[in-house]
Amino acid sequence: MNIYSVAMGKREVGVGVIGASGYSGQELLALIGRHPRMRLVFATSESEAGERIPGRSERYISVQDARLGDADLIFCSLPTDVSGEWSLRASSAGAVVVDLSSDLRSGVGGAVYGLPELWRDEIRGARLVANPGCYPTGVLLALAPAIRAGIVDTSRPVVIDAASGVTGAGRSPKRALLFGEVAEDYRAYGVGNRHRHVPEIARSLARLGGACPFIFTPHLLPVRRGILETIHLPLTSHLGVGDAVGLWTEAYASEPFIEVLEAGELPSLRGVVGRNAVALGFSDVEVEPPTLLVVATLDNLVKGAAGQAVQNANLIFGWRETEGLIA
Amino acid sequence: MNIYSVAMGKREVGVGVIGASGYSGQELLALIGRHPRMRLVFATSESEAGERIPGRSERYISVQDARLGDADLIFCSLPTDVSGEWSLRASSAGAVVVDLSSDLRSGVGGAVYGLPELWRDEIRGARLVANPGCYPTGVLLALAPAIRAGIVDTSRPVVIDAASGVTGAGRSPKRALLFGEVAEDYRAYGVGNRHRHVPEIARSLARLGGACPFIFTPHLLPVRRGILETIHLPLTSHLGVGDAVGLWTEAYASEPFIEVLEAGELPSLRGVVGRNAVALGFSDVEVEPPTLLVVATLDNLVKGAAGQAVQNANLIFGWRETEGLIA
Amino acid sequence: MNIYSVAMGKREVGVGVIGASGYSGQELLALIGRHPRMRLVFATSESEAGERIPGRSERYISVQDARLGDADLIFCSLPTDVSGEWSLRASSAGAVVVDLSSDLRSGVGGAVYGLPELWRDEIRGARLVANPGCYPTGVLLALAPAIRAGIVDTSRPVVIDAASGVTGAGRSPKRALLFGEVAEDYRAYGVGNRHRHVPEIARSLARLGGACPFIFTPHLLPVRRGILETIHLPLTSHLGVGDAVGLWTEAYASEPFIEVLEAGELPSLRGVVGRNAVALGFSDVEVEPPTLLVVATLDNLVKGAAGQAVQNANLIFGWRETEGLIA
Amino acid sequence: MNIYSVAMGKREVGVGVIGASGYSGQELLALIGRHPRMRLVFATSESEAGERIPGRSERYISVQDARLGDADLIFCSLPTDVSGEWSLRASSAGAVVVDLSSDLRSGVGGAVYGLPELWRDEIRGARLVANPGCYPTGVLLALAPAIRAGIVDTSRPVVIDAASGVTGAGRSPKRALLFGEVAEDYRAYGVGNRHRHVPEIARSLARLGGACPFIFTPHLLPVRRGILETIHLPLTSHLGVGDAVGLWTEAYASEPFIEVLEAGELPSLRGVVGRNAVALGFSDVEVEPPTLLVVATLDNLVKGAAGQAVQNANLIFGWRETEGLIA
Repeated sequence: MNIYSVAMGKREVGVGVIGASGYSGQELLALIGRHPRMRLVFATSESEAGERIPGRSERYISVQDARLGDADLIFCSLPTDVSGEWSLRASSAGAVVVDLSSDLRSGVGGAVYGLPELWRDEIRGARLVANPGCYPTGVLLALAPAIRAGIVDTSRPVVIDAASGVTGAGRSPKRALLFGEVAEDYRAYGVGNRHRHVPEIARSLARLGGACPFIFTPHLLPVRRGILETIHLPLTSHLGVGDAVGLWTEAYASEPFIEVLEAGELPSLRGVVGRNAVALGFSDVEVEPPTLLVVATLDNLVKGAAGQAVQNANLIFGWRETEGLIA
Repeated sequence: MNIYSVAMGKREVGVGVIGASGYSGQELLALIGRHPRMRLVFATSESEAGERIPGRSERYISVQDARLGDADLIFCSLPTDVSGEWSLRASSAGAVVVDLSSDLRSGVGGAVYGLPELWRDEIRGARLVANPGCYPTGVLLALAPAIRAGIVDTSRPVVIDAASGVTGAGRSPKRALLFGEVAEDYRAYGVGNRHRHVPEIARSLARLGGACPFIFTPHLLPVRRGILETIHLPLTSHLGVGDAVGLWTEAYASEPFIEVLEAGELPSLRGVVGRNAVALGFSDVEVEPPTLLVVATLDNLVKGAAGQAVQNANLIFGWRETEGLIA
Repeated sequence: MNIYSVAMGKREVGVGVIGASGYSGQELLALIGRHPRMRLVFATSESEAGERIPGRSERYISVQDARLGDADLIFCSLPTDVSGEWSLRASSAGAVVVDLSSDLRSGVGGAVYGLPELWRDEIRGARLVANPGCYPTGVLLALAPAIRAGIVDTSRPVVIDAASGVTGAGRSPKRALLFGEVAEDYRAYGVGNRHRHVPEIARSLARLGGACPFIFTPHLLPVRRGILETIHLPLTSHLGVGDAVGLWTEAYASEPFIEVLEAGELPSLRGVVGRNAVALGFSDVEVEPPTLLVVATLDNLVKGAAGQAVQNANLIFGWRETEGLIA
Repeated sequence: MNIYSVAMGKREVGVGVIGASGYSGQELLALIGRHPRMRLVFATSESEAGERIPGRSERYISVQDARLGDADLIFCSLPTDVSGEWSLRASSAGAVVVDLSSDLRSGVGGAVYGLPELWRDEIRGARLVANPGCYPTGVLLALAPAIRAGIVDTSRPVVIDAASGVTGAGRSPKRALLFGEVAEDYRAYGVGNRHRHVPEIARSLARLGGACPFIFTPHLLPVRRGILETIHLPLTSHLGVGDAVGLWTEAYASEPFIEVLEAGELPSLRGVVGRNAVALGFSDVEVEPPTLLVVATLDNLVKGAAGQAVQNANLIFGWRETEGLIA
């Protein structure tokens, strides 16, 4: 009987956070702090090792000093190219691991892609989960019902214009992320399908049975948190906004974290910041060929990172999926 | 011999501003203040009548008290549905008039559409000009070279995702424009081709010979000024980014106010705020059918409003087109 | 046996909010939503009557249609000069009432001033409470231990420089509060002790036995929420920062909502936003005559308004004082 | 006959900027670009060497490659502890030098303190100028008339509460200056008279004949540029706001860059950003002992840095003091 199966029966599990002083890491600590079944056993930070964790009595330690075996569950939120490696190491040490980077999203090391609303069953049995990217989370949840309903016209590209708050770019000091640079500015980046989330989106659309051309253009918003994605979805025939709302509402009827807005309403960042939710709004357009407008919003740090990671952990440990999360 | 022909020969003309306390009006006053050939004769404001004009010794007057006949040139920057009427009245009083609202852009009252880079010759002989909208200015200048080159695939919609700073929505007190509402938020509005700039764009594209389907989706940015438009342009065949830069560079070779960026560069708000300029950047995308990404930025209050109005006046009065403007 | 005494025994009380669509009102609704013993029975808004309450299924009603008698507890958060009157009416209808305006803070109608950390016992027995202003809450909690310890030099004025986020100014549309006006700006207002919180501070200092001259200068910050008060406190003799921390720590040892920072730490807005807390930091200054620097921060909408109102209600109904609040 | 005396007679001088990619450096480049008598000969940047200077055709070079002897005038805007050394080297190479750091403000190397409104005559004959700090510029110009009039009560400290936009902290990547940290936050720093501008203020007050105790508390504002200083000035007897305005107006009657506001008006950041100006507003306070409120605003990058540096250069080269500057 391994640590894992023991943990499964526990009322409360010991949780470690590797990379806990970044924005996702801080959000993880906040969520763990109010999760009724999680107890923090360590939190690592190379840049703040030895300093007190804000709002707690414990201090950050270096990842080198973390006793991985002490944790039943480890969230790993290091930068790309480093995170995956530590997640594999943590997994070998016996912990259930949720990696928040993009390192394992292709399935490396047997990692399961952790988007519960689409692939819940696989996650339940997983011990190593690759938490989805913030942008893909919105795109995939916005498109899945249309793909599954077979109404997408795949002869034209889906045009995805996305905008994210700066916490999505991490907390490492970079000139381009200084307040003096970002405030009162707005810019596109990673254009021409060169953003690292593009393969993740393509792979997941294919898995949904909806391989289709798309153009993904992210922009940097002068806000702290939140993502808004404006998606122009080519359809095989016109779909009124009421029917669109009906289709998506039915698809997500039992999902606690997906909010389908009424016809005439569109989501904004304000409505989702702080919540583990994706909000979806729709508009028809009088244009040929038929195209539907879908607007998706989510908090990049919650449903786009730490919240979804906790949701995945809830599934794995057999707790209520909403435990410790604000829907 | 009328006032107009006299004014044409003057070294300096008297200028009136109707609606001078809004954001465009304030920008007009600033531009007039440093224009070597313009002298302010009156500035009206209903909300601030009697108060001192910031940075000047004169005071705002009510439009009812403005002696329209005293001005050789009148900029009219009142709200939609009111502005056009006052512009016609000012025109009857003998002044050259540039109306900044959307009231006359369909040509009502014989108004000439004032987008100099596309229709300069008509503007030169005009006495009543309808200044273009801020969004259409960017869209039309971004698309014109492609339309004229005949490379647009009109069987698919052009997808125009646009974002504007809040000064584009005017200075009248509205709850939705409060700092407490706008800060840390981002939202789409006027979606489904319902924004009032849609007919203006459609009309102008047709006039360019490029009637084509398009989807225009504006968003409200938490910044004071600046517009960024991300345009997904369907092409009949692939165009590399270098060729795109070449085509647009050639088209605008002699234009002082249009900046075509090198391949690999994309414009942001920071680069254009305060300037009477449209900056254009390009990216190819590996996607089928062929689509080019064009990003346009401009300052909604300068090239998108007051600066373009001054540019139009410079043309009409036969001055250097760049007089008093920062390119 | 009246409604009141019945309510006192209830596990859950019915709560009405008068003026629920302003910023304080929205915060009240959020707090009531997660308070284990409160159940919303009505929420009024004149500007949004008939519209759905964000995040809830109910709709706002006009205050004229509110059945005041249906509520055991009513929070009244209307604008100054209107709020007090409705609070008195609600009180007559039998409800326990907490008024969030400044109308009743002088004790009109027998209202008890609701600053629990200083006058908890009176609040427990009250049925009509005047919730303190946001600025006074910080000032009074910052100064009380020094006044009670008798170390303030009252021959010199206490200099209080305060800065507040814009939600402190309410949600009514005013030009001065537009994003286009507030962003990238900063200004003092209500200077020369002319702010309406000045008499409230003076009255409360006197009641603490510490009538002393002070200069209160508020500023408008380009942030949504949060207050920071930099207080220059004249002392009768020098006090090292360690001793200061010791004095305040002891004074507030049993207070769940007051956070006294260690020597060398100073509070910022980020640390208190969303919490029902006042954070206090200290610095000594090498200057004569002796002066201590005290920096206080709080969320103007939580400990400065809605959170403190709930704290007062918790006291009155005999629940845990922290019930439904984040310390 | 040296380079210097030659340059003095030139209509146009060659200008070098050492440290040109920081915020002050960028502002210097912008000012040089529109100065009728300055021609850029080099601009150095270690972090951007080889990259194109925004808005120009030239590229940044490393300071090691700068031919100091080619410039008649050199502005040195490197970080503290490095800048002074390079300024001395540039001075040895024969150029007139204005150093924007705090390295030479104590007079090291014979540098003249360059605050024209107070010590214009010394600057005229200087060849090495230490440009004042942004905070001291406002404080000294706000206090000088009172000190010279002998109305300051030096038995009590002057309380100076200051707030600055983030560009004042430089453009080097630091976590504390990231948008994600600064936005929606506000904090004091360098409290307890520990900011490096404190000795500069003390020294200059003494030189004005007004050595007096003061407490200087700076704060970090979530805006890009602008400084506001709220100064509580102890007076020997009461002074009405009208008399205050009169005293300061007379003191600065011939100063183009100092704006004394009318009684009842207070300056804000908006009014001074982009201008080489200090705006001063006043309020009396009903408090004992007598205290006057003085509010000073300036653009930290213009009158607080690059603009004042150009003003100093204008003086030295005998040009109009306002040349190339917006008052």
